[in-house]
This record gives sequence, C-alpha cells and structure tokens, in this order.
Amino acid sequence: MANPSYYVHPTALVETTQIGKDTRIWAFTHVMNGVYIGENCNIGDHCFIEKGAIIGNCVTIKNGNMLFEGVTLEDGVFVGPHVFFTNDLYPRSPRLPEAHGRYETHDWFKPTLVKYGATLGAGAVILAGVTIGEFCTVGAGAVVTHDTLPYSLVTGNPALQRGWVCKCGLKLRLTESQAVCTSCGQKYRLSDGRLSPV
Amino acid sequence: MANPSYYVHPTALVETTQIGKDTRIWAFTHVMNGVYIGENCNIGDHCFIEKGAIIGNCVTIKNGNMLFEGVTLEDGVFVGPHVFFTNDLYPRSPRLPEAHGRYETHDWFKPTLVKYGATLGAGAVILAGVTIGEFCTVGAGAVVTHDTLPYSLVTGNPALQRGWVCKCGLKLRLTESQAVCTSCGQKYRLSDGRLSPV
Amino acid sequence: MANPSYYVHPTALVETTQIGKDTRIWAFTHVMNGVYIGENCNIGDHCFIEKGAIIGNCVTIKNGNMLFEGVTLEDGVFVGPHVFFTNDLYPRSPRLPEAHGRYETHDWFKPTLVKYGATLGAGAVILAGVTIGEFCTVGAGAVVTHDTLPYSLVTGNPALQRGWVCKCGLKLRLTESQAVCTSCGQKYRLSDGRLSPV
Repeated sequence: MANPSYYVHPTALVETTQIGKDTRIWAFTHVMNGVYIGENCNIGDHCFIEKGAIIGNCVTIKNGNMLFEGVTLEDGVFVGPHVFFTNDLYPRSPRLPEAHGRYETHDWFKPTLVKYGATLGAGAVILAGVTIGEFCTVGAGAVVTHDTLPYSLVTGNPALQRGWVCKCGLKLRLTESQAVCTSCGQKYRLSDGRLSPV
Repeated sequence: MANPSYYVHPTALVETTQIGKDTRIWAFTHVMNGVYIGENCNIGDHCFIEKGAIIGNCVTIKNGNMLFEGVTLEDGVFVGPHVFFTNDLYPRSPRLPEAHGRYETHDWFKPTLVKYGATLGAGAVILAGVTIGEFCTVGAGAVVTHDTLPYSLVTGNPALQRGWVCKCGLKLRLTESQAVCTSCGQKYRLSDGRLSPV
Repeated sequence: MANPSYYVHPTALVETTQIGKDTRIWAFTHVMNGVYIGENCNIGDHCFIEKGAIIGNCVTIKNGNMLFEGVTLEDGVFVGPHVFFTNDLYPRSPRLPEAHGRYETHDWFKPTLVKYGATLGAGAVILAGVTIGEFCTVGAGAVVTHDTLPYSLVTGNPALQRGWVCKCGLKLRLTESQAVCTSCGQKYRLSDGRLSPV
C-alpha cells in the first residue's frame, strides 16, 4: 500500500497489511504475515508478533514483547514491557528426537485470551491456556498459572489475587462489599466473589 | 558531530548527542532524543532508552534493557540483562476510553532512582517510585516493591532483604555487627539497622 | 562462505561461521565471533549470543534470548522466550572504581551447563554456576539457584522441585516409585531420589 493509514518505523519489519488506521509500530519490531492488528494501537520497539496472534483496537504494547500464535488481546489491553506469553505447557525442542511424537499433531497448543481493558505488568509470565478477565491487572513480575477474575489484581509467583482494581486502573478499597473509585468515581459491588460495576 | 568521542554501532539508532566520552552503544539499541548518558558507559544490544532517562558515568547496561522516562541511574550502576523498569503503579492502555481520565495529567508518573554503585540482577523488576540504595544488590529475578537500604542484598518475589554486600559486590558475613570483605578488605559496621563502611 | 548450509535472516548480524547445516537464525539477532552453533538449530528474533557460548545440535532458542560467555547448551535443549542467563554471582559495573579489583582476574566467572534435552521455560532465571540436568524442565518464570536433577520439574522463586517429566516433555505421575508416560509410553523408576528410564 503506497499510503497506509498506519505508521511503521523504517527499521521495523512488517509482513502483514491487516493493520488498522492510526496504529503505530516502532523500531526493530517484527510483525509476521498473518497477524491481525486493530486501530489506534501502539507497539513499541523490539517486539515480535507471530502469525496467528490477534490484537484488537486501542491496545498498548510496550517494548520487547513477543506475541505467539494463539495469543488474542481484546480491545484496550495494556501489555507492559517484556511480558512472557507461552502456548505450550510442556515444551521441548521439537528437534529433539525424544519429543518428535508430541509435535506431530497440534495437541500441544494452548491459546491465551486477554479480555477487554486488562493490564499485564512488566515482566509478567502468562502460562499457556489462561484467560485474563476484563479489566484485570496482573502485577509486574507475576506468574499467572490460572484464569483471573474481571477487575481482580493478581501478583506473585504463582500469582494470587490480592485485591480489586477499577476500570481506570486504580486499586479499590471495599467496605461492606462495595467500592467507589477515588479517581473516576465508578461504583462497584461484590457478589458471590465477583466484582461488578453498578 | 563528525567525530564523536563515543562509539555507536552501525545498527544502533541514537537520537541524542548528550553522550559522554568513551561510552559505547551496541547493536540494535535505540536511544531517544532527550536522553542524557555520561562518560565511560557500556550499553549492550537491543536496549531502548526513552526520553527523560538519565544515566551517570561508568554505568554498565547489559542487553535488552528498557529505561523509561523517570529512570535515573547514578554513577557506577550495573544493570543486568533485561531488567524491568516501570513508571506507573496502576497502568492501563492510555487508549482505553475508561482510562483516558487518568492519563490527562501526569499524576500516574512515578520516577525511579538507582543510587551510586548499585547492581540490578538479570530480570529483576523495579516497581515505579522505588529508590535503590547505594551499593545495594538486587538479586536476579527479584521483584522490588519498596526502597532498599545501602549495601543491602534483596531477593525474591516480593524482594526481601537477605543480607549485605560490599562495595566491590561480594556478600558480607557479619560477626557482632561488624564485617570485613574477604575480597577487598573493606570494613563495615552495622548500627541502627544500617550498614556503613568504617 | 558464498553458499552456507545454514540460513541467516537479512537483518541478523552473524560474525561466526562455526554454524552447522540446516540451522536458521532469525531477524535482528546478533551472534558474535567465537560462538559455536551445531546443526539443525532454530534461533529466534532479537537474540544475542556472546563469544564463548556453545550450542549443540537440534537446539531451539526462542526469541529475545541472551547467551553469554560460559553458557553451554547440549543437544536438543529448548530455551523459551527471554530466559535469563548470568555468569557472575555478585556482579558490579566493572567500570565502578570500588569494583575494579574483582574484575582484574576472571575469578568472578561461573559457567552454566544445560544438559541434553532439557527445557527452560519463558522468562526463567538461571543463576551463574548452575547445571540443569538431562530432560529437566524449568517452569516459566522460575529462578533457579541450584543444580537440578535429570527429569525433574522445577518452578517458583526460588525454584523448587515439584515433580518429574518425561523425555517427551509431559508431566509424569508416579505410583509406587514407577511411572509410565501417557503420551510416549516411556517407563521410569525412582530410586535413591533419582528418576531413570527403564
């Protein structure tokens, strides 16, 4: 395309044209053919996005991220620097004779879904097969081994839930199963272990 | 500058000229305009240094590091491979409509200070707003959530203090609140929970 | 060599010719002079391989890996994305005057050995001086501070042994000190705390 509606830094390698308008892709980043990227995204330096990854609109991907086949980021997701995605719970070198059998089919493959508005902190590790709930925040350096609830804050290795966060990102303080965000004013209620906006 | 007193690898992108003499910047590294780097530093491959980062003299930055706005490294700091700096405790995609309000001002921003002679181990995570004390060593893979003391050794997720280190880097063994480094001979005394050279 | 038997992506920097046939090296990767790489390896984007690293045959190295002097990977090893190798237990900036003495000799240097068929998960940290046993699997985000047993599964920070894995990669379930892999049928026996194929 002579005049694409998105920006690609001169040192980036972009092999797909399935990129929405106003998206920007920065230096030394490599996007493979077969990737889909929505509108108004920002993808930092030194990223690698593999065929089969799907990225929604308004997504921010900081530097050094590698998104493999099977990773889907819904709209508005934030991926901090160098988050670790995976798509195989028990990887071996496929070139290792003892492991050839496991790689003859695609059964090893486990997709990852990051839902609307969620945040993945710097250096977080997301194990294959996990779903991150809407507006969930995964703390920096956390190792996520299970699905996470919407609006939850999870940290540690392995990641455990430590609290709740607002749509706008701030930590919430609950009183009698209710919370009001001190930044944006959004109200929430906890019911049956799940937080919902009211 | 036709003949700068510092070295830039042909594949690096360096947009600032505020770089001290004898500093070397290696392959595929991107240094933005507005960065300040002192003398006699070594900055490895695949780094990204954002406008607003400040780097002193005699600093070693191993490969794959991303230094964002608000990160200040004093003289003699060692940054191991792929250390994770952050500058926002509750990040969201600024492109997410529900989070726009939080990014209209700069209140989300928290600077990070790494003081003279400190070491940040491989893959350590430094949360926004933290100060790392002089000659402190942060262990590989540690997640630092609070300020650290001078000469302290901190490891784990979250990082806790496990001991003390010498200016030269070696671990110290204290006997009756005193220690002598077996490598360089420096003497220390512990008083009121803080270690000082004597 | 005009027609090497291995593949180098046009954006990669490869300064060694000690590379075996059918090995592929991908975008923005930098391999220094003095590196040895075997046959039939796959080395992803944004890697850095330092002089003195040794890589066997049939090794898979995912994106963003940095292999320093002293790292040896035996045949069939899998290195997940952005694994952290180190070669100094108590690093300081060698440019820091207080640490000059420690870097006048090579005593700071500790090599790392990853044995046949082992797996290092995404974002794992391997401390200097460690040996990873044959077919061991290091979980994503684990921080390995000690040698690991053959066929062991280690996870966490610090990494502890949580179970056993088969040559083919799958987790094993032991009954009365014996196991049969549900994927490849390999049988094992536990004796004196070590697992062996039978």
